[in-house]
Amino acid sequence: MNPRTGRVELPVYTRAKQEILDITDLVGEAISALGLAEGAILLFCPHTTAALTVNETADPDVRADVGAALARLVPETPFRHAEGNSPAHVRSALLGPSLVLPVAEGKLALGAWQGIYFCEFDGPRARQVWAFPLR
Amino acid sequence: MNPRTGRVELPVYTRAKQEILDITDLVGEAISALGLAEGAILLFCPHTTAALTVNETADPDVRADVGAALARLVPETPFRHAEGNSPAHVRSALLGPSLVLPVAEGKLALGAWQGIYFCEFDGPRARQVWAFPLR
Amino acid sequence: MNPRTGRVELPVYTRAKQEILDITDLVGEAISALGLAEGAILLFCPHTTAALTVNETADPDVRADVGAALARLVPETPFRHAEGNSPAHVRSALLGPSLVLPVAEGKLALGAWQGIYFCEFDGPRARQVWAFPLR
Repeated sequence: MNPRTGRVELPVYTRAKQEILDITDLVGEAISALGLAEGAILLFCPHTTAALTVNETADPDVRADVGAALARLVPETPFRHAEGNSPAHVRSALLGPSLVLPVAEGKLALGAWQGIYFCEFDGPRARQVWAFPLR
Repeated sequence: MNPRTGRVELPVYTRAKQEILDITDLVGEAISALGLAEGAILLFCPHTTAALTVNETADPDVRADVGAALARLVPETPFRHAEGNSPAHVRSALLGPSLVLPVAEGKLALGAWQGIYFCEFDGPRARQVWAFPLR
Repeated sequence: MNPRTGRVELPVYTRAKQEILDITDLVGEAISALGLAEGAILLFCPHTTAALTVNETADPDVRADVGAALARLVPETPFRHAEGNSPAHVRSALLGPSLVLPVAEGKLALGAWQGIYFCEFDGPRARQVWAFPLR
C-alpha cells in the first residue's frame, strides 16, 4: 500500500478494444496487502472508458453475453466527442466506476457465483484498479 | 447479526420471473438489528441475476415502468450462456449489485420520494440481501 | 456540516429538462467543509429523477454524448406512471443514486480525466447532493 494515497494499485492489461476480465483473484491479493480483515473494500476505476461490475464468473459465456449486450445497447454510431470513443464513455457510465464489496475473515464475501469484472471499452491499454479499505 | 460475517441477512422471496420489490422497511429493520445510529449501510445482493436500486416507491407504476424499460433494453433474444438467463445477468449489471446509503439518528436518510428496490430478473426464488454497517 | 444529519448539502440548480452538470469543484469544497483528510466520501442524490456519475469532464462533448445516449436508450415513449416522467426514473436507475469516491490528502483522488456529474432528467429544478464522510 502507498502510505500517501492509502491505496493499493492493481495493474490490469487489456488486449482488445472491448474485453471483460475476471479480476477476483487480484482483488483477493489486494485485501491481503491492505491487511483488511473485516469491513468493506472500495474498488475504484480511475479511467473514463472502463468500468467495474460483479457478475457470474463460472461460465465465460456470461461475460461474453454482457459485453455483447452493452455493444448492442450503445452501438458505434456517430457522436460529438472528437476522439471517437463516446460509446466507451457511455458503456462505462452504465456500469459505473466503483464497487463497495464486503470483506469478512480477511476475504471477499461474495455470493457463490459472483466474481469481479474489469470492463475495458477502449483498449487495449495498461489500466489500474485502485483498492481502498473501508472499515 | 452474524458475528463471524458481520452482516444481517435479509430474506427476500420473489414470486415471478421478473419482480421489483420494495424492501425499504426490511432495510430499516436491519439498521435497528445492526445497532447503527450514524454513518452508512452497505446493502449487497449476493446473486448474479438480481440487483438493488433506489427509486420512487410512492406510486407502484414507477416500479412497473422501470421493469418494462429494462425488459425492452435487454430483450429475451438468444445469448451464448447455456442456462438461458443472460438477459437477467445483463439487467442486473445495469443496476448494480450494491448500494451505500446514508443513516442518521438510527434511520435510513433517503430523499422524500425514495425507497429501496430488490430487482428479481430470474425468479421466482428465495433470495437474500446482505446488510453491513459502514461507520 | 449539519451535526444532526452528519452531512453537507450541496445545492445544484438545473436549467433544462435534461442537463449534465460538472459538480467536481462543489464536491471538493464539501470535502474541505467536512474536514475529511483520508478515506472516502459518499455522495448521495436524494431525488428519483436525477443521478450521479463519474466520467471525462475535459471535453464538454462527452457529457452531451452521454446525455444523448441515455435519451436514445430510454426514449419518451408512453409509460404507466401518470406524472409522465418515467423515462427520467429509468435513466436515473441506470446511472444510480450514489457514488463512493476516494479521498487522499484532503482532496478527491480521481483519475486524470475524471470528474463528477450531476445528471438531471426532469428539470429544471432546485436539487441537492448530500455528502457524507466515510473514514
